Formats: sequence, structure tokens, C-alpha cells
Amino acid sequence: MDVTDLASRIASGDRRALARAITLVESQRADHREQALALLNDLARHPRQALRIGLSGTPGVGKSTFIETFGLMLVGLGLRVAVLAVDPSSARSGGSILGDKTRMERLSREPRAFIRPSPSQTHLGGVARRTREAVALCEAAGFDVILIETVGVGQSETVVAQLCDLFLLLLAPAGGDELQGVKRGIMEMADLILVNKADGDLKPAAMRTVSDYAGALRLLRRRPQDPEGFPKALPVSALEDTGLAPAWTEMQTLIGWRRDHGHFARRRAEQARHWFEEEVRQGLLAVLTRPGPVRETMARLGDAVTQGTLTPEAAAAELLAQL
Amino acid sequence: MDVTDLASRIASGDRRALARAITLVESQRADHREQALALLNDLARHPRQALRIGLSGTPGVGKSTFIETFGLMLVGLGLRVAVLAVDPSSARSGGSILGDKTRMERLSREPRAFIRPSPSQTHLGGVARRTREAVALCEAAGFDVILIETVGVGQSETVVAQLCDLFLLLLAPAGGDELQGVKRGIMEMADLILVNKADGDLKPAAMRTVSDYAGALRLLRRRPQDPEGFPKALPVSALEDTGLAPAWTEMQTLIGWRRDHGHFARRRAEQARHWFEEEVRQGLLAVLTRPGPVRETMARLGDAVTQGTLTPEAAAAELLAQL
Repeated sequence: MDVTDLASRIASGDRRALARAITLVESQRADHREQALALLNDLARHPRQALRIGLSGTPGVGKSTFIETFGLMLVGLGLRVAVLAVDPSSARSGGSILGDKTRMERLSREPRAFIRPSPSQTHLGGVARRTREAVALCEAAGFDVILIETVGVGQSETVVAQLCDLFLLLLAPAGGDELQGVKRGIMEMADLILVNKADGDLKPAAMRTVSDYAGALRLLRRRPQDPEGFPKALPVSALEDTGLAPAWTEMQTLIGWRRDHGHFARRRAEQARHWFEEEVRQGLLAVLTRPGPVRETMARLGDAVTQGTLTPEAAAAELLAQL
Repeated sequence: MDVTDLASRIASGDRRALARAITLVESQRADHREQALALLNDLARHPRQALRIGLSGTPGVGKSTFIETFGLMLVGLGLRVAVLAVDPSSARSGGSILGDKTRMERLSREPRAFIRPSPSQTHLGGVARRTREAVALCEAAGFDVILIETVGVGQSETVVAQLCDLFLLLLAPAGGDELQGVKRGIMEMADLILVNKADGDLKPAAMRTVSDYAGALRLLRRRPQDPEGFPKALPVSALEDTGLAPAWTEMQTLIGWRRDHGHFARRRAEQARHWFEEEVRQGLLAVLTRPGPVRETMARLGDAVTQGTLTPEAAAAELLAQL
């Protein structure tokens, strides 16, 4: 594969080249990995910056419809939009979110849009690296906005928060009692809470939910990276395409403020350090899983531990002494 | 400290010695660590086995009341009960679940009960090790049942599932729409789902919730470690002490079956291997955080990454080449 050629095709906005490059960074093969790093290095020489928006929401809140409507709106404004997914659960289920492009049929037909489903992965570290590199590739391809979708479970929000400039939490209308159903940690990450399905019969419930969350957000300490009044809760209807334009205006206000006050650049710098350290950790741990004497010793000691002839602590001490 | 003396006091059931030993395994000091390992090794020579029960539930479902009532019931049956907590969020909040023993005032006054709050910890790896070692100490102290409580967030359930023989999920009564609020992964871990607050006005809602979850559980594939009919959903009222005796009977049935079919021993063996591997991983990563040249290089490269003069990947490759 000619990496330089692939790089220039990506830089010129060729979506097929981009798709191929993402497949390359997803590959576990050593020669592919080498090519992927060469490609990323090549593209890093001419950096471009997209607005990276993370989007979290549990199944059923209407994430796909939201992404479709929001994406089409951005495309209509002349922007190029890429959609990526982080789904560590796909390792277990074998499935993937975004797996079915028909979920976003209209957006996927747009020449200015690019949708990439989440691959099956074996561990969150792999998911994180793959997504981070896919983000870099989409930026190099000149996209203006990158939407990074995740399901509302466990660690995946943390990964997305470390990848994005702006974090959206999408919710469905609910009764007041369910307020605590949203994990506190996720609410603390959110820059905007969007209550979807503010249409038809559900509109009153949606407005109540917005006001409940607005109240809850006021109880949280103001973060240094937020101007007065943020984070906000807003009603939207992805189905009827209402509220999305105001939400986009709020996002631009927030990001503009963060750029002006240095928070945007600082966050990206901190994220880069985080990913460097994470990459080091993963690289260090790789010695345990790579074929070789260490992996063999680990398997042998592991057998002794399961047979009860060695405690986990003693076995670990023995292996670590050898490393 | 005389480790042999401490070990024999623990083995004789001295609760103060046990509390002191848990403080020892929680300590970060190198000399304490050495003593802790010697103590665990000493105690491992005369292994005892408790039934380890994991308990998860989001705030507000009545976990403390449940533990108090359930613990008192077990104590009334002549059993010795220890209660531990896994709370990785305490690192951020500075607080801790179980922090306030007055939450379980009656149980904490029982001579046959032992309650240990969760300490503040900096990372989940530390929480897991500390809890695992505290479990080992409680077993050595001759407790019959160890309850390991966790809040329903993120990775802590995974830690608890790797520590317990039986996993309980405690829920509050809810409307049918909220069914999906429980993370699928947690439901798949649960051996028994207990719907609390099946009393007073909430009783009808609790019974509906039980039947909703019973239906949902039937949709999940039967796991090899379960006899026919498990996992089950049952109503309980910790407040009125109803349903707890039947729940305990179900737990004994399940555990008896697993013992008879080899699943109990196999699970413990797999858990031991898991903790051995986890201990190796943590030990390997410690080189990055221990004071020394590696940590210094990491800090220097991290600065270059945040300043944008080096990509995360290139910096990681440089550090890894050095290791």
C-alpha cells in the first residue's frame, strides 16, 4: 500500500480512501499497524481541526434519529459531517451500534457526510485507540464536525469525553422520579443536555424533564471551562426537527467562549497527554499477551493459581520479579 | 508489628485485629505492604471459606436498610456476617458509601457482625485489591457470609462480580418504561434480582416490577452456572422484613446446586486467575508512577505532547522503546 498516496487522497476528501484508512487503523496485523502509524504521521504534518462533538444516550432516546436530523442540518449549512461510534459492548454482543446504516439512511446518502459503524473489539483500550485514530483521519479529511456516538454504559463515556471538545447528553422525557437514573458522572461531563421527543403527546413531559435537569444542573458547581449559564438543558425533537438550530447556536456560543478563553486548546492538550499515557500503558501491557516466554509463564502460573497451589499475590510477585 | 500474632488473633475472630489488618492492606507504605503480604500468606495456610455475596443497587433503592435487615436475619440464624464496600467513586467525592455506620446502627452493634466502610482510593485497581484482600481477611476471621456492597456505577460491578459467589441486584419499584434503565451488563451478572420496598403504597408497583424483570430474565439465555428457573426476580421489603427469608432460601438453593455441579469451585478458580493477572498488570504499570527515571521521561514526553511538538503515538513509541 502506498501510504503517501492514501494520505493525499484522504486530504483531498476522498471518502473511500478515508474508509480504507480507518480499516487500516482497526487492523491488528503488525504490518498494517506500521502503515497506519506512517499514515497518521504523514497526515499530522498538515493538521486540520474539526469540532469534535461527543454524544451519549441510552438506547431508546432516539440517538440515530437525532444524529440523522442534526447531521442533515449541519450539511445544509454547508458543513461536512463525520459520524463515528464508540461501543465497547459490541465486543460481547458481537453487534455494533451504527451497524445498520439504514438507521441514518438520508444522512448516509449525503456526499458531505461520512458514517462509520463501530467494529467489534476485544477491549476498551483498542476501542479508544481506534476511535482516536479515526477522529484524526476524519480531521485530516477536512470534516468540519465529527460526531462521536456512544451508548450510555460504563467507561465508554469517559473515552468519548477524552476525545471530544463538546459533550452532549441525549435524554428522553421522563417522570421526575427518574432523575437519578442518569449517572452523576455523566451529567458532570455533559455540556448540553438535550431532551429529545419534545413533540406530540410527549411534549409536556419533555418540557418538565428539561426543567428538572436545568434545576439539577444549577446544583452542580460551575466548571472553569463554562461561561455563565452552562451547562444547559434544552428540548429538541429530532423527529420534527425542532430545537436543533437553537441547540447548535448554544454549542457555537460555548465553543467560541472556550476558544477565546484558552480552554479549547488546553483541553486538547490535556487529551493528547492522556492518550500518550494510555498508549504507553497499553504498550507496556502488550508484553503479557504477545506470544512469547512471558505469556507462557503467565499461563503456567495462572494454572497453579486456579489449582490453588499458589496465591494470586505470590504468583504475581514471581512473574513481576522475572520482568 | 507481629504478623504471626495478628494472624492468630484474626483467626480467633478478634474484630479489632481484623479491622487493624484491613487498615494494613489499605496502606500504600512499602513496609506495610510487605507485612500485609506476610499476613495474607500466613492466613492462607489455614483456608476458610465464606459465602461471598455481591450486592449492587443505585442510590435510593434502600441498600443500607436491606443490608441491615438481611444481616440481622443471618445473625439471628447464628451466622457471622461481614459487610464490605466497593466504591470507586469515593475517590472523586471524597466520601464513601457505608461511611456512616449509623446507617446500619443495629447491625453494627451485633457482636457477630463486622462492617467496614469503603476508604477513599485513587484508582479502581487499588479498590479491587484492597477489597479482595479484605475479603480474604474476613474469611480467615471465620465469617460465614461476606456481603460486598457496591453502587450501581461503571466498573465497580465487574470488580464485585469477580469477588463474589453470588450477585444480587437490588431495585426499587418502577414503571414499566424504566425497565431499560438497568444496564444490560449488570442484569446479566445478577443471580437474583430483589425488588425492594414491596410494602405499603409501593407494593403493587413492586409486584409489577418483579413480574417485568422476571419476564426480562426469561429472555436472557440460560447460563451454564444456573439451575432451571434462575436467575429469579423476587419482591422484598427491607423495612418490614418480608421476603428476605425466601430470598435467602433461593440463594442457598442456587449455591448448593453450583457446589454440587462444580461451578462454585470453578468460579473461584477463575476469579483467582483473574486477580493474579490483574495484579501482574498493576505491578507492571507501577513502573510508570513510581518515582524514578521512567516517570521523569514520561512527564517530559507528556509536556512535549501537550505542546504539540510530538504526537501521542510518537511519544509513546519513544518511551516504550526505552523500557
